[in-house]
Amino acid sequence: MTTAPDQQPVPTAPGDAPVINVGVLGARGRMGTEVVKAVNDAEDLELVAMVDEGDWLFGLADAGTQVVVDFTRPDVVMDNIRFCIDNNIHCVVGTTGFDEDRLSTIAEWLAPKPDVGVIIAPNFGIGALLLMRFAQDAARFFPSVEVVELHHPNKVDAPSGTAVRTARLIAAARREADMPPAPDATTDALPGARGADVEGVPVHAVRLAGLVAHQEVLMGAAGETLTLRHDSYDRASFMPGVLLAVREIGRRPGLTVGIEGLLGL
Amino acid sequence: MTTAPDQQPVPTAPGDAPVINVGVLGARGRMGTEVVKAVNDAEDLELVAMVDEGDWLFGLADAGTQVVVDFTRPDVVMDNIRFCIDNNIHCVVGTTGFDEDRLSTIAEWLAPKPDVGVIIAPNFGIGALLLMRFAQDAARFFPSVEVVELHHPNKVDAPSGTAVRTARLIAAARREADMPPAPDATTDALPGARGADVEGVPVHAVRLAGLVAHQEVLMGAAGETLTLRHDSYDRASFMPGVLLAVREIGRRPGLTVGIEGLLGL
Amino acid sequence: MTTAPDQQPVPTAPGDAPVINVGVLGARGRMGTEVVKAVNDAEDLELVAMVDEGDWLFGLADAGTQVVVDFTRPDVVMDNIRFCIDNNIHCVVGTTGFDEDRLSTIAEWLAPKPDVGVIIAPNFGIGALLLMRFAQDAARFFPSVEVVELHHPNKVDAPSGTAVRTARLIAAARREADMPPAPDATTDALPGARGADVEGVPVHAVRLAGLVAHQEVLMGAAGETLTLRHDSYDRASFMPGVLLAVREIGRRPGLTVGIEGLLGL
Amino acid sequence: MTTAPDQQPVPTAPGDAPVINVGVLGARGRMGTEVVKAVNDAEDLELVAMVDEGDWLFGLADAGTQVVVDFTRPDVVMDNIRFCIDNNIHCVVGTTGFDEDRLSTIAEWLAPKPDVGVIIAPNFGIGALLLMRFAQDAARFFPSVEVVELHHPNKVDAPSGTAVRTARLIAAARREADMPPAPDATTDALPGARGADVEGVPVHAVRLAGLVAHQEVLMGAAGETLTLRHDSYDRASFMPGVLLAVREIGRRPGLTVGIEGLLGL
Repeated sequence: MTTAPDQQPVPTAPGDAPVINVGVLGARGRMGTEVVKAVNDAEDLELVAMVDEGDWLFGLADAGTQVVVDFTRPDVVMDNIRFCIDNNIHCVVGTTGFDEDRLSTIAEWLAPKPDVGVIIAPNFGIGALLLMRFAQDAARFFPSVEVVELHHPNKVDAPSGTAVRTARLIAAARREADMPPAPDATTDALPGARGADVEGVPVHAVRLAGLVAHQEVLMGAAGETLTLRHDSYDRASFMPGVLLAVREIGRRPGLTVGIEGLLGL
Repeated sequence: MTTAPDQQPVPTAPGDAPVINVGVLGARGRMGTEVVKAVNDAEDLELVAMVDEGDWLFGLADAGTQVVVDFTRPDVVMDNIRFCIDNNIHCVVGTTGFDEDRLSTIAEWLAPKPDVGVIIAPNFGIGALLLMRFAQDAARFFPSVEVVELHHPNKVDAPSGTAVRTARLIAAARREADMPPAPDATTDALPGARGADVEGVPVHAVRLAGLVAHQEVLMGAAGETLTLRHDSYDRASFMPGVLLAVREIGRRPGLTVGIEGLLGL
Repeated sequence: MTTAPDQQPVPTAPGDAPVINVGVLGARGRMGTEVVKAVNDAEDLELVAMVDEGDWLFGLADAGTQVVVDFTRPDVVMDNIRFCIDNNIHCVVGTTGFDEDRLSTIAEWLAPKPDVGVIIAPNFGIGALLLMRFAQDAARFFPSVEVVELHHPNKVDAPSGTAVRTARLIAAARREADMPPAPDATTDALPGARGADVEGVPVHAVRLAGLVAHQEVLMGAAGETLTLRHDSYDRASFMPGVLLAVREIGRRPGLTVGIEGLLGL
Repeated sequence: MTTAPDQQPVPTAPGDAPVINVGVLGARGRMGTEVVKAVNDAEDLELVAMVDEGDWLFGLADAGTQVVVDFTRPDVVMDNIRFCIDNNIHCVVGTTGFDEDRLSTIAEWLAPKPDVGVIIAPNFGIGALLLMRFAQDAARFFPSVEVVELHHPNKVDAPSGTAVRTARLIAAARREADMPPAPDATTDALPGARGADVEGVPVHAVRLAGLVAHQEVLMGAAGETLTLRHDSYDRASFMPGVLLAVREIGRRPGLTVGIEGLLGL
């Protein structure tokens, strides 16, 4: 792919199956390494550039990169995105640290480039996103709901960010359906026994050697329970979400936050 | 409610909250008894008629019944439905034994009655229906999928009808997404170890004293698994689905098979 | 044993298989009803007396009762036990409310009756007792351990008494093995997220419509976890423990607290 | 430690806490690498020799090795063991391929060396061994029992060797307790639905991308179930068993097969 950036065509849909040229920013990091491997393993993707600290960004453009995947650091990611937009390269970003200000800035940069897409996603784990989606959909049918998350004991926050976010989404779905608080006759409890209260949804955090990252949503109604559980063992689990974003971004110009919308649910 | 059937208004949406007059057919049966209890406990429903073997159906009409719930037997259910349609009474039917012929007959009966609804549902368990729905939605994201169902040891069929149906829905979703068979390197297996093959989805049936009715769908991708589990302990668990159908049928004239469409997913 | 019911022989071991004559005290209560049914269903046991409020205790002796099962109330149980001991009837007691004082009193009553046995058990659920036993045995092999109990939402105490007792037994086993506290890097927690602290063992209590009584002990070490789970759906689950006590008491004169020792572990 | 092998004292109990000198055979293999790391991390163990293909065994003796851990290959392990016994070095062996013949040979070699111990263990996973032990202990209290094992899809055998062994141990415990077959009313089954029959115990094998190695024993009685589950994520999970054997072997001269006996249950 050697056309000048200006004439660079937007990558087309998988159905047409031309290969997409992918560049990886932060290619030697933990996530970047996984991305490099995943792109190499995908027949419809071509790894054309690996860039890390100390490398020139120009290499991305020179290599004819159509989509960049960025797992770098909050202090450099904005420069990376700016460069990509200027060079008509789509950008799939897993780096953290985005607030409203940063998102507005990116939207401004994108305004004069109607064909370029930027996807900023805090979580590329499709399983985790499906669990959240299903939990929201099911919420209004079950008077009771609690969240149990289980992680390795080196985790510093409890509950996990994902569990808190899941609980909030469930709470919002319950409010929207005008549901009363979950039934709970507890009058005599040891402190902490009933978990953390996240907008009315109890969240329990288990920390156990041997575990990785696990989350369970338990929903109950008279005579039945529905349990949704996600087990994440390995950061390889984020790759399908990253590749989905790489394949879809050509059809999604502008700024997209989160990959939920790409799941076609 | 004493207006002639012809002028009988269709029950309105719960938001408007007029009470719906409900009659129960098969009121002394196992399911009927639960329905009677559930209707009595619901503020927006009024139990106006309980009919069982030996009772006159006319009582239903005389009592101003707007919606009938029928848990009777295959040999009488068609007569019941006919009576209801003739009398402009909506009909929520949990009785089994419907084939294409029966469904066409009902559709014919309904043709001249554009305001009357009949809902025939093989399964009123909302939890089980949600599980099937979610399993279908998630199927295309996970290369591997298996179903494990667990029941009390008095069950005669294995796997359960629900598990077979779930596996078929998953298989269809996988076909639609052009997915290859799930990876499986097994070359050395004891007969039965890998379960029953339902359109390519392995289904395992556990029979255990103490259990009631449980189903698990396990989905796996690199580095992560998603598990959907439904536990049914009691036929009380079917009542929310029955009541949902009772409340919604006024807005759904004609023939509806299954209550999936009523869940608003 | 040759005192009167002077000629009443001590029940012999199941191997010898003479039938044991059983009387039920509190026969019309919730547990008593189950006991009556269970004794009736057991080929090696003969139900000879059913006694409840307002009935004479003498009927027990007259009927040749060898073993009484008492599920009555704290305010009458001591009189019942006294009567049984005086009449050389073994006593299996599931009634609650025993403290050290009451136990000493019973021991005094038993002193002159070396052939009579009294078993006082707070929990006849063999599954729950096995779980506690296994949790204790496994405790010293796993640096991490937490307890999750899950119950119906009408329960007033959290965690359940069984969960607290389980946690204490685990904590004692850990102390005995000189284990350090479980690893836990949590520095940033919402209140309650990490559960209740029972002697260093986190215990989480879930309350969910649809559930009955469930308990899970999770143990973790580098690269592996061991999970012990007990699900109790029905008070029928206590009957095997009651019948075990009935069959064994003839070989266990004196006072026995708990049926753990009868499990032969 | 430089005394001649003849005077080499047997390593003493952990209570006394002298450091034990450990040599690793097969030190560059997958398991050997883990053992090296685990020994290095243990304060009471000193790694004095790492030997792999092409290295001299004499290095073990020269380094004052008290205990050797052998994860090599069936074709060299017998020579290794012979060397260790001749040099008064205890031997903890995880290499596979031992039959009765090999075990007798080792016993003969050990006869003139009453202070030397050899432990041959097919499985050093303490969690898996505890699960087997508990399953056996619980077996006679539950009319129903089934085994579900779940593994990554690259596994060639189904069910796993561990699951088959677990089922056999359970079956033996049931026979010893004169238990009838588990209740099962199934008359209408798809082939394979009810799993593989291992001496009367149904065993189900699930193969799922994302999984590692997992096993569940489900036991049921009227109104209750007991579930024992072991999840193994990493071969690090075998190290506590290996280290236990290293620490205990000084007190266990002669040939020991399996480390179950070292668990002190």
